Amino acid sequence: MKQVYVDRIAQVRQMMEQNGWDAVVVGGSDPHSSEYPAPRWQQVKWLSGFTGEAGDLVITRDHAGLWTDSRYFIQALDQLEGTGVELHKTRVPGAVSIPQWLCDNARVVAVDGLCQSAGAKMEFSEALPEDGEVVDAPDMFDSLWEDRPQYPVTPITTLDVECFGGIQRTEKVAWLRKWMLLQGVDRVLLSSLDEIAWMLNVRGNDIEYNPLVISYLLVSQDSVKWFVRKGTTDYDPETEDSFSELVADGVEIEEYDDVVYALKDFSGETAAVRIFIDPSTLNLHIYDSIREAYPDDCIIMGTSPVILEKAVKTESEIVNLRQTYIEDGVAMECFLHWLEKEVASGREVTEWEASEKLTEFRSQVPGYRGNSFENISAYGPSGALPHYSTPHEGSAVIRPYGLYLVDSGGQYLGGTTDITRTVPMGDCTYIEKEDYTLVLKGMIDLSMSVFPKGTTGHQLDALARMPLWKAKRNFGHGTGHGVGYYLCVHEGPQSIRFQPNPQPLLPGMVTSNEPAIYREGMHGIRHENIVLCREAGVSDFGEWLEFETLTLCHIDTSAVIPELLGPEAMQWLKEYNSRVYETLAPLLPEDVAQWLREKTIS
Amino acid sequence: MKQVYVDRIAQVRQMMEQNGWDAVVVGGSDPHSSEYPAPRWQQVKWLSGFTGEAGDLVITRDHAGLWTDSRYFIQALDQLEGTGVELHKTRVPGAVSIPQWLCDNARVVAVDGLCQSAGAKMEFSEALPEDGEVVDAPDMFDSLWEDRPQYPVTPITTLDVECFGGIQRTEKVAWLRKWMLLQGVDRVLLSSLDEIAWMLNVRGNDIEYNPLVISYLLVSQDSVKWFVRKGTTDYDPETEDSFSELVADGVEIEEYDDVVYALKDFSGETAAVRIFIDPSTLNLHIYDSIREAYPDDCIIMGTSPVILEKAVKTESEIVNLRQTYIEDGVAMECFLHWLEKEVASGREVTEWEASEKLTEFRSQVPGYRGNSFENISAYGPSGALPHYSTPHEGSAVIRPYGLYLVDSGGQYLGGTTDITRTVPMGDCTYIEKEDYTLVLKGMIDLSMSVFPKGTTGHQLDALARMPLWKAKRNFGHGTGHGVGYYLCVHEGPQSIRFQPNPQPLLPGMVTSNEPAIYREGMHGIRHENIVLCREAGVSDFGEWLEFETLTLCHIDTSAVIPELLGPEAMQWLKEYNSRVYETLAPLLPEDVAQWLREKTIS
Repeated sequence: MKQVYVDRIAQVRQMMEQNGWDAVVVGGSDPHSSEYPAPRWQQVKWLSGFTGEAGDLVITRDHAGLWTDSRYFIQALDQLEGTGVELHKTRVPGAVSIPQWLCDNARVVAVDGLCQSAGAKMEFSEALPEDGEVVDAPDMFDSLWEDRPQYPVTPITTLDVECFGGIQRTEKVAWLRKWMLLQGVDRVLLSSLDEIAWMLNVRGNDIEYNPLVISYLLVSQDSVKWFVRKGTTDYDPETEDSFSELVADGVEIEEYDDVVYALKDFSGETAAVRIFIDPSTLNLHIYDSIREAYPDDCIIMGTSPVILEKAVKTESEIVNLRQTYIEDGVAMECFLHWLEKEVASGREVTEWEASEKLTEFRSQVPGYRGNSFENISAYGPSGALPHYSTPHEGSAVIRPYGLYLVDSGGQYLGGTTDITRTVPMGDCTYIEKEDYTLVLKGMIDLSMSVFPKGTTGHQLDALARMPLWKAKRNFGHGTGHGVGYYLCVHEGPQSIRFQPNPQPLLPGMVTSNEPAIYREGMHGIRHENIVLCREAGVSDFGEWLEFETLTLCHIDTSAVIPELLGPEAMQWLKEYNSRVYETLAPLLPEDVAQWLREKTIS
Repeated sequence: MKQVYVDRIAQVRQMMEQNGWDAVVVGGSDPHSSEYPAPRWQQVKWLSGFTGEAGDLVITRDHAGLWTDSRYFIQALDQLEGTGVELHKTRVPGAVSIPQWLCDNARVVAVDGLCQSAGAKMEFSEALPEDGEVVDAPDMFDSLWEDRPQYPVTPITTLDVECFGGIQRTEKVAWLRKWMLLQGVDRVLLSSLDEIAWMLNVRGNDIEYNPLVISYLLVSQDSVKWFVRKGTTDYDPETEDSFSELVADGVEIEEYDDVVYALKDFSGETAAVRIFIDPSTLNLHIYDSIREAYPDDCIIMGTSPVILEKAVKTESEIVNLRQTYIEDGVAMECFLHWLEKEVASGREVTEWEASEKLTEFRSQVPGYRGNSFENISAYGPSGALPHYSTPHEGSAVIRPYGLYLVDSGGQYLGGTTDITRTVPMGDCTYIEKEDYTLVLKGMIDLSMSVFPKGTTGHQLDALARMPLWKAKRNFGHGTGHGVGYYLCVHEGPQSIRFQPNPQPLLPGMVTSNEPAIYREGMHGIRHENIVLCREAGVSDFGEWLEFETLTLCHIDTSAVIPELLGPEAMQWLKEYNSRVYETLAPLLPEDVAQWLREKTIS
């Protein structure tokens, strides 16, 4: 089984030999720096069998290594066994990064320039010896990879802004053009897929869990060119309608691969053309094309302005989000009710079955367009893996005691959801209850916070951790990530993290609030709500912001130790559960509403 | 009275005319970037009458302006009235900095290069037009300033490290030399006075409140040269003894003004000499001398390594600090007892008298060497000025109701103290009690925090503010500053602030914890303890730190609203007051001990 990876890496080494490369670096992303690349770009998996969401592979003549972080250490050791690929741990004390490691082990490094960002190349180049070189070898494994999946082409839909909120694409283009004038740039190339989907109000299914269309967008003062695969083999009426609507709004539909020519087309231009790019997401291949065609001082690099604009949700998006979280809450409560009854009945429900059942409930929500990431359905020790991937076969049976963790979310026309509940299935140990309560206190303390304009998520992070910290416990991931609007479940620029991030929280930003704890071999606990940052008025002391909790799904009180939670958080919990019941009960089947009533009376 | 300032500014304008200067910038510091400059360098005060601790003056042909921050707005408006000098507010939204303002109003800018840091000149130079110029005119007001105070020369003492903790100067020099080897530099010039005092274990009284000696220190691998005014007129036996001790340890005593020659002396050197300087504190005059004598690539600039080394107190310093805070607490309790009895007796005690009495109690402490800053003794509305300067004449009478704020500290051989207590003198209004309780809750919440290694003060700042923030209240200064060891009461590099500071808190660092609130015309409240960062053990989740409260002086509970403080903080307060009583009672006069017992039983 593992021999296939050994063979493939041997073939890569032959290719290296033929080309005079000392090393090949294989990134885990696609030409658009997507979080979840389509199968065509799962090159790390094809070469090594590793399926984690984050991992880069480096092959030299005598070494093959996978660089990944603590979320995937256990999984990597398991999946890499017998492949000859060794694990290199990242984000640990003394970790050696790929560029650092390369500088001692290679002079000529080949990368698939389509799947490495320009920023990554800059890092490699700096680390290599003076006579070192980074070679761009796009699609380098094509000749070795039989049946390599094609570029995905899925139907393209447009968003009905009147119904589902947001801003018309013509207004967004006008905003970007004004920004360009202020910055003195003539063209902006967008390559990040959620930025393009947001700009054009289009959605597709090219990427799993992310409703995106693989494409580039080139905006100037007199044109908007969208470079996209048109799906030549199958005529799709929905896509055709979408194209017509876009054309009517002045968007020119071009072939995906023609972006390189368009970038180099200066016809009609009378002066030097200045182009704006974001090197952190633009792939090296396109970046090098631009470097060939534009003088250095005409390439303006920075963070795309779309990222911040997209993160601040509009009034109409917020109205839709509130409704979407109610409907998502209905699905969650139906699921939790089903789970409790099934397990109590003595039937052996596995993590996988539970996960499937949850998706079934969610798919009944109007406007459901799929899940926003792979469900994490984890009982007992499985929960101790923050990114546990529930196996189809042989997943654990959920027993009527201990803790079951479920982290899931949906893509809806009215927004993207993300929620984690940790459910006491019956009796819990004292340490389970203690951890459950401390994590919950952190989540509630952050929820209750009020803060002046200008505050960053970095400044608030300690509030969510302090109850754990006081017990000398902690968790290794961020407390909160931005959440897109029927877009990616993880987005920037804001975050709530231990690591510095200078972006202040702004009214309209939607962020997760998810402290946690993981004890290997025992249990994992995470309580996650999605919160909206909103205005909280003005006082003699300035302007204030606060969080509105969007997520509506009760939090089980049976594992709460009240003295540890404290009176203020207890009061919050009581009010939250009451709000969940009041809001959802009218929408739930009678038996579920009755059950929820009992769950939320305290 | 104010005419004198009008006349002086007119004379400066004549000087500008004669020299072809468009503007003169007068900084508020001395040649060593000291926080409290000696009278000789109080040039802003001499020119404008403004006595605040932070303020820079800019004079052009048709404008004179004082730049200062919100702590001094009220004072500045009052003191500048009738002088023709206008207030420019700093650290407010839309504030225009001096460099920004200069770029529109001047081409040739003169500064006293002795009293501007090299870093400040860089800022000015960048802001000026291309043909602009910064002219160094050292001691430019000498010809106008009759009776300008001389350079201060006070007796120099050495520290007895055996008795009062710390590290021998020979060891400190060895440490610095090792650092120099690692950095590849041949010479280090120290100009910041507390860094020099720390390196050499010397103290003086050249600067008010700061036990420092005006000097430079030049360290190389084979010499340590200390450039200091030797006090030629008066022979001082203490200073002579100190010099002898230093010489015995290999320190060469040189004349202060000879530093310029020593910097340019390369005799005996066979290769290019690389010098390390810290441009944020080195004055422009010396900096320019160095620029003349060294090639650019031999001037290594950065943050002085002494700053961090000095901030981490040694075990023996910590032992002494604990004892010093006990003794300082005894003085504080005697004072608070005296104040309550006096006011209750119906006698009219003024803020000034109280301040003098406090200094009297403190001066009875063994090892007392003066106050560490000017006492702030403020009753009622006076407390609303964070840096209230209690007037000798006409200060307010302390009444038997409302709040009295006293912020003070001592310099002792065994360390530097800083404490603020806000004392309910009798009945208080609800808003006074509410503010008192919320500020106290913030101080206690921060005191109780536990945090992993690597945490910065910036990450903890919100803990001290959240109780206020939840009531939409705030304060405009930092929550905590570093405190020196029988050195400056304000030191870096760590801080606990809303503004980012990347320095993690390290075991051995001593920091203030002083949330506050100020209501103009009503009251000011600040609760300040000094805390030591210390190890809190290791768990499965990493290595932990916590704060030990060094300050020992009871916190009055009569203005506390228990429901608002919450049970956890109430418990902390109870235990803290008990600890204060248990520790101090045996050292207090019987009546004070009895009174303290009543104050601390709750």
